[in-house]
Amino acid sequence: MTRSHTPDMVRLGLDEVHDLTRDTLRAAGLGAAHAAAIARSITRAQADECHSHGLYRLLGYVDSVRSGKAEREALPVLARATPVVLRVDAKRGFAPLAIEAGVPALIEAAKTYGIAALAIHDCYHFSALWADIEPAIEAGLAAWCFTVGQCCVAPAGGTAPLMGTNPIAFGWPGPQDRPFIFDFATSAAARGEVELKRRAGEALPAGWAVGPDGAPTTDPAAALAGALLPFGGHKGSALSMMVELIAGPLIGDLTSRQAKAVENGDAGPPLGGELFIAIDPAVFGGATLAQRMSDAQELFALARAQPGVRLPSERRYAARARSAGGVLIPAGLLQEIRTLTSPHAAAERTEGG
Amino acid sequence: MTRSHTPDMVRLGLDEVHDLTRDTLRAAGLGAAHAAAIARSITRAQADECHSHGLYRLLGYVDSVRSGKAEREALPVLARATPVVLRVDAKRGFAPLAIEAGVPALIEAAKTYGIAALAIHDCYHFSALWADIEPAIEAGLAAWCFTVGQCCVAPAGGTAPLMGTNPIAFGWPGPQDRPFIFDFATSAAARGEVELKRRAGEALPAGWAVGPDGAPTTDPAAALAGALLPFGGHKGSALSMMVELIAGPLIGDLTSRQAKAVENGDAGPPLGGELFIAIDPAVFGGATLAQRMSDAQELFALARAQPGVRLPSERRYAARARSAGGVLIPAGLLQEIRTLTSPHAAAERTEGG
Repeated sequence: MTRSHTPDMVRLGLDEVHDLTRDTLRAAGLGAAHAAAIARSITRAQADECHSHGLYRLLGYVDSVRSGKAEREALPVLARATPVVLRVDAKRGFAPLAIEAGVPALIEAAKTYGIAALAIHDCYHFSALWADIEPAIEAGLAAWCFTVGQCCVAPAGGTAPLMGTNPIAFGWPGPQDRPFIFDFATSAAARGEVELKRRAGEALPAGWAVGPDGAPTTDPAAALAGALLPFGGHKGSALSMMVELIAGPLIGDLTSRQAKAVENGDAGPPLGGELFIAIDPAVFGGATLAQRMSDAQELFALARAQPGVRLPSERRYAARARSAGGVLIPAGLLQEIRTLTSPHAAAERTEGG
Repeated sequence: MTRSHTPDMVRLGLDEVHDLTRDTLRAAGLGAAHAAAIARSITRAQADECHSHGLYRLLGYVDSVRSGKAEREALPVLARATPVVLRVDAKRGFAPLAIEAGVPALIEAAKTYGIAALAIHDCYHFSALWADIEPAIEAGLAAWCFTVGQCCVAPAGGTAPLMGTNPIAFGWPGPQDRPFIFDFATSAAARGEVELKRRAGEALPAGWAVGPDGAPTTDPAAALAGALLPFGGHKGSALSMMVELIAGPLIGDLTSRQAKAVENGDAGPPLGGELFIAIDPAVFGGATLAQRMSDAQELFALARAQPGVRLPSERRYAARARSAGGVLIPAGLLQEIRTLTSPHAAAERTEGG
């Protein structure tokens, strides 16, 4: 752990990020299997400089361990509804361990039958969707995943929160070593972005939100008390409703509104489900697998050749390459994380739990 | 066929729309099975007042019969790559007959295994995606379909056409008799909308297009010579790229750019494929099927209760109810269709083919 040139940033090795996460979660009382899975998840996000899903997430995870929201020792159980529909009951534990329990079976089913689905049930999802599907993409599959986010988004034309931020991720198994993967909220902005604007005292771009009075607002506080809007007008709104349906009722799990009703208000994630779909390109007819990979590659190359165009995952892969030598973490965040395991915090935990 | 109160509109019964379509296609030389499938497709679109996919489409279909683009007698062949991956080889015929050949098998596979995919290969797709998936939705499934549209869309940040208009349709099997189904282009607007603006001498809204010089334009002619833009910035662009990948290379069919390269320039559709995915909600765990239908119903009801919110398919269902008593067709369009089967047009056809 060394100070960097920027005074308030500290350089950590990825193994330090991993161990700090694991040890902090263990000290908070989380079971070893969950602490290890979350440490892997946070380390990957931090390596890709997805700061919102990196070490920063540890604060919320610890809060949900302490509040009693997440089951500390829950062991996820994999079941097969059919050879191509898999289900993991997360038993109210955090998602990463449940995802690790389900994705290898999803990959195997998709490779055997061409298409398969995996539903993660009854979990607290706090990780990045791109990371959830990446193992399937690396195994040569195209894959999606969907989860229902915090209920704070109004349908297009409306003014009251009804839907979650409802992210969608999709990945294609190429190009080699840096596959095309996107992952975005179907709201105009993630709720965290609005919170950051509020802390920074900055106005929101037009079109992100309405206030509690239903009128368009650029005031972050008014937006948080009102509703975020979907991206892309009625089309984004339809996609948000789709995610609400397929990561909720389709798999027999909660809508964002139902999750809000059982929420304890800690700094962690809402209860809910996650849907994965994976397809093996090799199983379809038409062009050979080599030809279709080459056709996709040409598409990416032509996109990249246009000045101003960036493929969705390029920034992450550049960060990943940089991060082999370590990552920069705000000193204040590290201090906050260390405070979580201080004797005072431990005493609070004992009193609370 | 009776004149309506609007002087230049003519009221036709749905059976008249159907028979006019079938007879016009037959007179142009199209095989009976294709003419019947297209007549069903056009009649459904016209009944839902999707004018762009109703009788208006007949002009393009006839043009592609006459130009020799579409195989007049091609009989689609259904094959099973696996029990849950189905393929229909359309053999360069129009899509509606191939879709009718594949969708019942898709429904059966999804009901048996919980999830299934169907690829339509080597077809000329000119129909509305909502209509393509509606039989699966009516059978109680959630379903998607995707196809690659005409290559005229630049990726976000870019200026040159690389992707098609690449529509996405999704449907949920409720509410009863008027299920939630959306169907939209991932471009800011369909190419047809831009053409209509040009004919009307109207400016485009900002953000729809760039001109051949790469600069943003509101001039429809410049937009048609330049490129349309995706809806919703980089998120819509990522979705357009996803459709390009999954309705192209994933299933072993053409990208929009490859289709453009083999295009003969008639008024009909480009060559390509279509991907369907269907999921049976009944197969997943968690809530009962009745409970999940009720949860979705509550979501729709709460959306509709917000002033200003309309669900994607409501306008179509209202039109469908009205259309039992007949539909209004522009007299000029009817005249144009009748001209197609006049002796003069028939002579042209003989010379051409």
